[in-house]
Amino acid sequence: MKLSELGEFAFIDRITPGCEAADPRRVLRGIGDDAAVIESGGELLLVTTDMLIERVHFLRGTISFRQLGYKSLAVNLSDIAAMGGVPHEAFISIAIPPTVSVEELDELYDGMKALARDTGVNVLGGDTTGSKADLCINIAVTGSVPRGEVLYRTGARVGDRILVTGTLGDSAGGLTVLLERPDLPDEVAQALLQAHYLPELYLTEARILAASGAAHAAIDLSDGLASDLRHVCRGSGVGAIVNEPALPLSGALRQLCAVTGHDLLRLALGGGEDYRLLTTVDGARVAELQSTVAERTGRTLFDIGEIVAGDSIRLRHADGTCRPLALSGFDHFVTRSPESPVEGS
Amino acid sequence: MKLSELGEFAFIDRITPGCEAADPRRVLRGIGDDAAVIESGGELLLVTTDMLIERVHFLRGTISFRQLGYKSLAVNLSDIAAMGGVPHEAFISIAIPPTVSVEELDELYDGMKALARDTGVNVLGGDTTGSKADLCINIAVTGSVPRGEVLYRTGARVGDRILVTGTLGDSAGGLTVLLERPDLPDEVAQALLQAHYLPELYLTEARILAASGAAHAAIDLSDGLASDLRHVCRGSGVGAIVNEPALPLSGALRQLCAVTGHDLLRLALGGGEDYRLLTTVDGARVAELQSTVAERTGRTLFDIGEIVAGDSIRLRHADGTCRPLALSGFDHFVTRSPESPVEGS
Repeated sequence: MKLSELGEFAFIDRITPGCEAADPRRVLRGIGDDAAVIESGGELLLVTTDMLIERVHFLRGTISFRQLGYKSLAVNLSDIAAMGGVPHEAFISIAIPPTVSVEELDELYDGMKALARDTGVNVLGGDTTGSKADLCINIAVTGSVPRGEVLYRTGARVGDRILVTGTLGDSAGGLTVLLERPDLPDEVAQALLQAHYLPELYLTEARILAASGAAHAAIDLSDGLASDLRHVCRGSGVGAIVNEPALPLSGALRQLCAVTGHDLLRLALGGGEDYRLLTTVDGARVAELQSTVAERTGRTLFDIGEIVAGDSIRLRHADGTCRPLALSGFDHFVTRSPESPVEGS
Repeated sequence: MKLSELGEFAFIDRITPGCEAADPRRVLRGIGDDAAVIESGGELLLVTTDMLIERVHFLRGTISFRQLGYKSLAVNLSDIAAMGGVPHEAFISIAIPPTVSVEELDELYDGMKALARDTGVNVLGGDTTGSKADLCINIAVTGSVPRGEVLYRTGARVGDRILVTGTLGDSAGGLTVLLERPDLPDEVAQALLQAHYLPELYLTEARILAASGAAHAAIDLSDGLASDLRHVCRGSGVGAIVNEPALPLSGALRQLCAVTGHDLLRLALGGGEDYRLLTTVDGARVAELQSTVAERTGRTLFDIGEIVAGDSIRLRHADGTCRPLALSGFDHFVTRSPESPVEGS
C-alpha cells in the first residue's frame, strides 16, 4: 500500500500499537501531543522532535541558512511551549550534502545558537553526517514542566474560551509571496515572509497560562487552525464554535488576499506553520490572563470562540449563521495541489 | 570552504562555541561524549541522537526494513550503555520517500518495537514526514544513570586495563561480504552480515561496570577501535598500549581475510560499527568483573591492553615490539576510498 493512500494520521495510528508497552509507569503522555510527558523524579520531563527536509519543508535559495537554523529550533521550542513547559536542551542531527559549504553551516548554527541564547536553551550536539542529496535537519528538545501544570491537547472543557496568541495565516501568506511573487509593497511582503521564516515564540505566555491553573488545554498551530483545533476537540471529546469576526488577521494578509484573490479565511484557518499557541481557558479568567500577558509581554491573547458540548466544530459568521469548519490542514503524504510544494513541520 | 576539507571532528569543534552558554548549571556533559548528561532532579538524564541516511549509512535492498529498524534503535541504545546508563524512551523521526510502502514501514517499526520491548524502552513517536529522495531516520533516546555512576570518555586512569565486550571488525567484515560477495561458506558470510545488520547490545554489562565503581571510562565502538580509543585517551590525557595477540577476532573474520586477502588487523582496528563497549577499569578488579559478567550474561570482557602515561597509543606485537596504532577510523566528510561507500553512524 502506498503511504499516500493511508495518510499521515492513519499511518501514525497504525504504528502506535506496541510502542509504549515496555514501561508504562514512566509515560504520562506518549504519541499524540505536542511533546511526550515523562516521569523523571523532579519536574516532568518533556521531549519533542521535528525533522526538516530539503525540498519538502524548505527550498534552499529561498530561505537563508540563518533563518533555517532559527526556524528548525523554533518549531521545537513551540512544541514545548504548547505543553506549558520551559525548554532546556536541543540536540541537533544534521545530514549534509556536499553542496553545502562550511560557511553556510556556520550561518545555520548561528541562527540556532542566537535563538537558543535568547530562550535559555543549551545546544548539546547530536549527530553530524553526510547526505547524498538533501539537507536534512532533526532537532530533539528536552524541557520540563511542574507537576500539575502540563497542558495536554485533551483537557478542553465545555464553556472554555478559545484563545490564540497572534494573527492567523501570515505564514501561509509568506509562502504565497514566495511562490507567486505578487505585486505587493515591500514592507507587506517582508512582514509575511518574516512570519513564514522566523515564527514568533510564546514561551512566556505558555508559562503564564500553565501556572495560572485557568488553562485546560493547549496546542501549537502547525497544521492550521482548523486541523489543530480538531485535534484538541477530538482529544477532549468536545466541540467548538469559532467566531469569524474575532479571528485576528493581519493587514498584510488582507492586502495579499486583495491583490492575489486568495481566500482570506482559507489561509487563516487552513494555513500551516503559524506556530501561535491555541489554548482553552476558564471563561471567567480570560480578562485576567489577557491583562497579565499584556503587562508582561506586550502581546494579546485573542478570544476567538468557545468550547461547546458535542463533537461539531463550527464557524460562526457575523450574521449569526454557522457552518462546519472545513478541515483544510496539512497531511504530509496525501497528494496535494501543485501550488503548495513546501509543507509545514 | 568545503566540509570535506575541514573534516567531521574539526567541524564539530568549529560549531561548538556558544552552544552550552545558556544554562551551564544543568549540563554535566554536552557535546563530545556518547550522550549528553543533564541534571534533572532525580537520577542524571542521558540524551543521545543518531541519524541514518539512505545511500550514506545503508543501501535499500541490501538491508531488510526490519533489520534497519533494529539497527537504527540499537546504535542509540549503545550510546546510553556507553555512559553506564539505562535507556527509557525513543523518539523516532522519519522522512519517507514515496517509493517506500506502508508494509515496509510496518517491518521497520516491527524491528524497532521488538528491540524496544526486549530492552524495556518506550517508543514515544517523534515526527513523520515526506522526503523527495532518501529515506532518513533519526532516533533520539533518553536514559538515566545514578549520580556518581556515569562513565565518561574522559575518566581513564594510568594503570587501568582496557576491556572490550566482544570481537572486533565483524561489522566491517559484513560490509565487505555485502560489497565484494566473496566465496565464503554461507554460515561464515551470515555471521558477518549479522554483526553488521544486528549489532549486539551490552546494556547489562554497562550497568555492571558502572555500578561496580571499578570502571573509569567507557565508549561504544562506532568508528573503529583505533579512532574510539583515541577519543578516550585524548579526553583523559593518557596513552594506551593495545596487545595485538589479545585482540578478540572471530573465526568468521579470519576466514574472510584468508579468502579475500583483506588485512585482518586493519578491519579489527579500523572497522566501524562494531558497537562493542570499550571500557577502562581498575586493574585489580578485572577478574572480578569478568566473572560477574560471565555469570550474569554469559559474555566475556576481553582484556586487550592498558592505559599508560603520556599521549601515545601503541600496538604491542607478540614479539614485544611496539608501533603506533594508526588512526583508521571513519570521518563522515573526508573523501575516502571507493570500496567503502557506506559509513558508520
